[in-house]
Amino acid sequence: MAKWVYTFGGGKAEGSRNMKELLGGKGANLAEMASLGIPVPPGFTITTEACNHFYANDRTYPSDLKEQVEAALGTVADLTGKVFGDAKEPLLLSVRSGARASMPGMMDTVLNLGLNDETVKVLAESAGTRFAWDSYRRFIQMYSDVVLGVDHHEFESILELEREKRGAAQDTDLDAEALQEIVELYKKLVEDTHETPFPQEPHDQLWGSVGAVFGSWMNPRAIAYRQLHDLPASWGTAINVQAMVFGNTGDDSATGVAFTRNPATGEKALYGEFLVNAQGEDVVAGIRTPQDLTEAAKEASGSNLPSLEAIMPEAFTEFKGIVERLESHYRDMQDVEFTVERGKLWMLQTRAGKRTAKAALKVAVDMAAEGLITREEAVGRVEPNALDQLLHPTLDPEAERTLMTRGLPASPGAATGAVVFSAEEAERERSEGNDTLLVRNETSPEDIHGMVAAVGILTARGGMTSHAAVVARGMGKPCVCGAGALKIDAKAGTMKVAGKTWKAGDVITIDGATGEIFDGRVPTLQPELTGDFGTLMEWADAARRMKVRANAETPNDARVALDFGAEGIGLCRTEHMFFEGERIVSVREMILASDEAGRRAALDKLLPMQRQDFLELFTIMSGLPVTIRLLDPPLNEFLPKEDDEIADVAKAMGVKPARLRERLIALTEANPMLGHRGCRLLVTYPEIAEMQTRAILEAAAEAAKETGKSVTPEIMVPLVGMRSELDTVKKIIQETADTLKANGTAVDFSIGTMIELPRAALRAQEIAEAADFFSFGTNDLTQTTFGISRDDAANFIPSYQEQGLIEKDPFVTLDADGVGVLVRVGANEGRKARPELKVGICGEHGGDPASIRFCDAVGLDYVSCSPFRVPIARLAAAQAALSTSQDQTA
Amino acid sequence: MAKWVYTFGGGKAEGSRNMKELLGGKGANLAEMASLGIPVPPGFTITTEACNHFYANDRTYPSDLKEQVEAALGTVADLTGKVFGDAKEPLLLSVRSGARASMPGMMDTVLNLGLNDETVKVLAESAGTRFAWDSYRRFIQMYSDVVLGVDHHEFESILELEREKRGAAQDTDLDAEALQEIVELYKKLVEDTHETPFPQEPHDQLWGSVGAVFGSWMNPRAIAYRQLHDLPASWGTAINVQAMVFGNTGDDSATGVAFTRNPATGEKALYGEFLVNAQGEDVVAGIRTPQDLTEAAKEASGSNLPSLEAIMPEAFTEFKGIVERLESHYRDMQDVEFTVERGKLWMLQTRAGKRTAKAALKVAVDMAAEGLITREEAVGRVEPNALDQLLHPTLDPEAERTLMTRGLPASPGAATGAVVFSAEEAERERSEGNDTLLVRNETSPEDIHGMVAAVGILTARGGMTSHAAVVARGMGKPCVCGAGALKIDAKAGTMKVAGKTWKAGDVITIDGATGEIFDGRVPTLQPELTGDFGTLMEWADAARRMKVRANAETPNDARVALDFGAEGIGLCRTEHMFFEGERIVSVREMILASDEAGRRAALDKLLPMQRQDFLELFTIMSGLPVTIRLLDPPLNEFLPKEDDEIADVAKAMGVKPARLRERLIALTEANPMLGHRGCRLLVTYPEIAEMQTRAILEAAAEAAKETGKSVTPEIMVPLVGMRSELDTVKKIIQETADTLKANGTAVDFSIGTMIELPRAALRAQEIAEAADFFSFGTNDLTQTTFGISRDDAANFIPSYQEQGLIEKDPFVTLDADGVGVLVRVGANEGRKARPELKVGICGEHGGDPASIRFCDAVGLDYVSCSPFRVPIARLAAAQAALSTSQDQTA
Repeated sequence: MAKWVYTFGGGKAEGSRNMKELLGGKGANLAEMASLGIPVPPGFTITTEACNHFYANDRTYPSDLKEQVEAALGTVADLTGKVFGDAKEPLLLSVRSGARASMPGMMDTVLNLGLNDETVKVLAESAGTRFAWDSYRRFIQMYSDVVLGVDHHEFESILELEREKRGAAQDTDLDAEALQEIVELYKKLVEDTHETPFPQEPHDQLWGSVGAVFGSWMNPRAIAYRQLHDLPASWGTAINVQAMVFGNTGDDSATGVAFTRNPATGEKALYGEFLVNAQGEDVVAGIRTPQDLTEAAKEASGSNLPSLEAIMPEAFTEFKGIVERLESHYRDMQDVEFTVERGKLWMLQTRAGKRTAKAALKVAVDMAAEGLITREEAVGRVEPNALDQLLHPTLDPEAERTLMTRGLPASPGAATGAVVFSAEEAERERSEGNDTLLVRNETSPEDIHGMVAAVGILTARGGMTSHAAVVARGMGKPCVCGAGALKIDAKAGTMKVAGKTWKAGDVITIDGATGEIFDGRVPTLQPELTGDFGTLMEWADAARRMKVRANAETPNDARVALDFGAEGIGLCRTEHMFFEGERIVSVREMILASDEAGRRAALDKLLPMQRQDFLELFTIMSGLPVTIRLLDPPLNEFLPKEDDEIADVAKAMGVKPARLRERLIALTEANPMLGHRGCRLLVTYPEIAEMQTRAILEAAAEAAKETGKSVTPEIMVPLVGMRSELDTVKKIIQETADTLKANGTAVDFSIGTMIELPRAALRAQEIAEAADFFSFGTNDLTQTTFGISRDDAANFIPSYQEQGLIEKDPFVTLDADGVGVLVRVGANEGRKARPELKVGICGEHGGDPASIRFCDAVGLDYVSCSPFRVPIARLAAAQAALSTSQDQTA
Repeated sequence: MAKWVYTFGGGKAEGSRNMKELLGGKGANLAEMASLGIPVPPGFTITTEACNHFYANDRTYPSDLKEQVEAALGTVADLTGKVFGDAKEPLLLSVRSGARASMPGMMDTVLNLGLNDETVKVLAESAGTRFAWDSYRRFIQMYSDVVLGVDHHEFESILELEREKRGAAQDTDLDAEALQEIVELYKKLVEDTHETPFPQEPHDQLWGSVGAVFGSWMNPRAIAYRQLHDLPASWGTAINVQAMVFGNTGDDSATGVAFTRNPATGEKALYGEFLVNAQGEDVVAGIRTPQDLTEAAKEASGSNLPSLEAIMPEAFTEFKGIVERLESHYRDMQDVEFTVERGKLWMLQTRAGKRTAKAALKVAVDMAAEGLITREEAVGRVEPNALDQLLHPTLDPEAERTLMTRGLPASPGAATGAVVFSAEEAERERSEGNDTLLVRNETSPEDIHGMVAAVGILTARGGMTSHAAVVARGMGKPCVCGAGALKIDAKAGTMKVAGKTWKAGDVITIDGATGEIFDGRVPTLQPELTGDFGTLMEWADAARRMKVRANAETPNDARVALDFGAEGIGLCRTEHMFFEGERIVSVREMILASDEAGRRAALDKLLPMQRQDFLELFTIMSGLPVTIRLLDPPLNEFLPKEDDEIADVAKAMGVKPARLRERLIALTEANPMLGHRGCRLLVTYPEIAEMQTRAILEAAAEAAKETGKSVTPEIMVPLVGMRSELDTVKKIIQETADTLKANGTAVDFSIGTMIELPRAALRAQEIAEAADFFSFGTNDLTQTTFGISRDDAANFIPSYQEQGLIEKDPFVTLDADGVGVLVRVGANEGRKARPELKVGICGEHGGDPASIRFCDAVGLDYVSCSPFRVPIARLAAAQAALSTSQDQTA
């Protein structure tokens, strides 16, 4: 016989904290508290399995559920001395949902269950007439709404009419008689709309509530919440049925919530609030001003309301002891709910408390220091993504603000600046020391210098993986993308939102963590990388197996990466170096050249600039590994696209616009993502690979001389699909190196490849025979494996997400089932050919904790991510290693 | 001790026909003939392993090679009574290359080796003075060219001067004395240019020749030939050294070549030619008119020269007996070379004869009828691709022609017609009964009606897989693509090639099998699908395991497919139906609609047209399976692109051009191949799937009623990467079917999906849980697996082929190592979930024999290809099955 019901109360329980899957979070913790001897209102939990049975069997209950509930009610009766359905000592119940994960407010609750025309009188005798009728009124309203589906507005209307009639300003001004009359009106409303009278039989009320709470697991709100938080419907919810306790039976009663530490700062001090003579919903509703729990908090807040410590010292002392015990027992900061009923303390809930990133860090480090948890556990206690909040400026939460509109939170951090509509303006203002926000419909590689110059980026179009978003994240620069309400007229130098106009030079503020855009300046707080941060990172570094590198091209990026603890550069995208100043001119000359000689002439001009780029990088990274990817994008990315730009560039270069346009057309591809780029460029224009190799090796030699540390560059060939491609480019690199060596520049280097095409992963064994290292380019690998262009995905992915076709954006979190299979195959096959093969990942996934966990499981040697995500990656890598080692010891 | 040398002659041999890898084709067959007791000049073969040793060891010979060659020379001496290097009875040798596969003319040969100032005199005594000095002269010239690298033009100059001096019109007019003088001049030339005298020592001559012949394996000509024919360099060449025999020692000598059957027609009759008193090179040179071998052939050709049968009856009878024996022995048509030296017949070579497709068919069918080979062997004897020649009109080989220029041979068949530059002109001319050739820079889906109306297509741009090429092949219509020399001015109605101009209406001819374009009309021959064709197809059908279907949308295509033996339609691309007449208007209305209601209104207009399309298809296919793919391409393919077209369309639709342009821009994608298409369209616009499902099911019901045969359409969902996509579209289809059923239209149907993305192949198991069938869309699967856009590949693939990075175009022959891995995984995983899963392939690879072999090996149920390739696929599938069954019995 299946056990569907678990009782708790009176110092013991059938369940425990380890049974969250079966009892839900609330039920498991109620059972745990009961077992610890902590006072919880006696009750029982109906399991999630009963919920699943309910859905699997056309919304019916297991045949033996009723019997088990009756038995449990008996146990509660024994503990409370009250009997459910009894007219003399009636037991009143609360019925609450409780799923495995907290889903606040998503599902239904019924309180005061068991009240009817008879029991209300008994309650009146023990707790007062007004209290009893008010409770009955509330119960009818709640039950009818939740169980019978009677619109709660209709009850509100009745209440309002009655208040008017009696000149009562608030519900509390209504006396017992009025409430009694309202109850009659309520019951009539139910009978009229529902066509049967309001149920008087407590068992009918109970089963009606159980059905409604199970049913609420599938209400649209709950479904949407689960989709949003990635929770499977198959979990089901449990139901907790408990004896009612009342915090609103007079001045010796109270109700409140508390955290064992400050959830905003992490400070170790009891933190929370309560109300005298109130129910839980009153605390939440915020109508009355809540009081502080402790004298210390009262003093700190300057409140003139007495603390719990002061007015109910006995209950407070018991409470303080209990929560301290709970924190020790659970070895984590607790978030608790409690009620004092006529001086008697009842604990209603305990759970791990939600906290800010800052608090999480402090709590973890403090608890390890207190010996409550180990350092490894501390490392596991901070959500890596939460660190992002700590690494960027944030809006002062106290500051006033005027919201203009919203976009997508594309790159975290808050920034204030004058609006500019072009990269050139941004640069000009920068040179005069002014902060600007670059506002564009969308950005392109030509805007990079503007993005560098601006303090933040705002675009009207494009998604989380648009050019602006990706580049901004890479730069660690605040960015809000796809703010569709923004109508930009760059020529006129204006932008409009909902009819209102802003001009170039007007100051606005963006919050890249929320996607909000504010008019004017909103004060920001600078990030503090406190000692706790450093401490936790140190512990994380001690725990992790994988190395963490950064994707960086500029000296600034490289320095930031180093500051954040990067152990090398995993991806230096050389094309990003091609857009600045004179370089772009030479790059264009190369592209426009009609033969190899012309290309070589242009490349000769680029050589010293590239060499200087690499020299700076090598010098900054001082002996750490630097992986340099040879030219990757299609050449037309370097040409201007618009007519007026073409005219400007043609003039500057001294060629006819027609020539530029002709070349642009010749280079335009149907599907540039799958076109003439990567190693395909290097095979057709070997002189490019030659120039880049020379720049790399000469710079390495010079850097080694300057820093006194040996530099071993890793040269990476992009977009290889066939071993023959790698062989061909490798030959060019090797021959160039041989020539340099013959001329006295001898540098050790290694040659590897990106694995970013399905075919490369499938043929990894033979490719590895020719490669010193692999770096999984999971951006492109995701595009090709799914057959989805990141640039075009916005046309259908939102619809996919709405309809629930896709859980996680595969461009954010590595698709372990598809793309991940290729990563695993690629790594394993590659190592078959070459056991010492160094294997890493670069691209956006390298900074995503879930993806990092996958990389650790597959056994990659390192991840590489944008500089600002390096700390996140370090922590995620540590957590991955710790969970692996736990798995192994388990 | 390795054996490097194999002797043959005198009725025995150390080698045999099975040793082609070691002895080369020529050497193996010489050994075989010797063993059969057929007279071959005694000699020996130096193995391909010796060649490989030569290259692996810096062009040196195995240490024991010399010894083995000496021993072999001894054997030859025993058989001939002549001794190599002997002054009295000198043995003269021929030294010929002979690789595993025939490489005609690619490598070097040295004849008359062993002649020197002494032996020439001995030869003069036995064979006449003039003959001897002429032989010596030829030897010096050939040897100096091949071995010493003296330019053969210099010898020609000497010869010419001498002829002038002596008033000799031809070489044959030079007498012995003159030739002797020429020999002196030759020797002087060698000594002057080569700085050493011409080698007199026969062994020096022999080793010089052996080195030169091995060396010629790596000459640029040979390397290029091997690349072209996919032959690995690792094979190496063997060398055949034989006693010289002379067909030019008088009127009782002759030399000739023969086929045991007619290589053009396959007719069973000795076919060949010979010359009296001549050497092999004279037959090839074509200076003298060769004579027929048989009296019958002489009569048939009306020649006035006597036949071999008539003038050398004894040798002829022996020859006839030998070649008949060879054909029986080799069980295939033979191509032989022979020489008669003073009445004595010598066989110099035998090998399987090259033949036309027509001959191959007849020879195979005849030989099976004769009992020489089995029917299964007959099926294996015809190269499937060769059938292509038989299924299309060809240029009359006798006809005169004037070449204009060349393009790519994009779709086989010859066609003559008046030049038109637009689809509309083509349609207009067609309606007046005129044949046209549609000439475009490139074609787009909007040209389809013009391609249908024209008899052939010619484009200036685009490769073998361009739109024009793919569509033309699908239609079985001749097409030449990418004729870069063509400068088209469609507005002016002219095209230029190399300065010459053709106008619209001028007649030209294209040969889609060669890519040639001719001025004016060139007569063509219509294909005859003779009885032999039908017979062989019948045998093939009996042998094959896989079904063969066709890719077809139009009634005409479906009929052609059926005529060619298709067993159903494997891919009906519904979008092709959207371009004609009124439909395109409704399609555009749908695309321009701003909401679902607008789209539905347009789809309502399309419904009856689509239903009619399907009704016709189902009626023609009468009970055979028909797989219909729901709408696949991105919507902007249906919109006009050019300004003037936009204006026209906007006018016709009564909308503003700006509206059209706006929509066009909104629908323009960075990478349309990876964009909003396939099931992504169906998920976002479910009403399209609904309309198409309705059209399919209603048509199926009607067709079943009309034909009396049940129709079970297979509805195919394109571009699925995740099971959730298939589930979503399946639900739409199922709900539409349920609605129809409720209204009285109940049709059995199945729902399947294309597997055309790497992820779909990797997740095939879960996708198969929701699919009745899989069809591998290997075109897109190749694009995504390689990360190569077919439309853009022309920018680098030619360079890849030149540099040898890629062997076969993966869009023509399935890449078994990469894409094929995914096909195999997809099929296996799919069948794990659903053992009865029907699995096929559609797309270009379905008609490629090598790919079909792969599909058979993977265990696919069917292949689907364009109608004109159906016979090829049937034959290839049969060969695949036969080779599999051989593999199993082996």
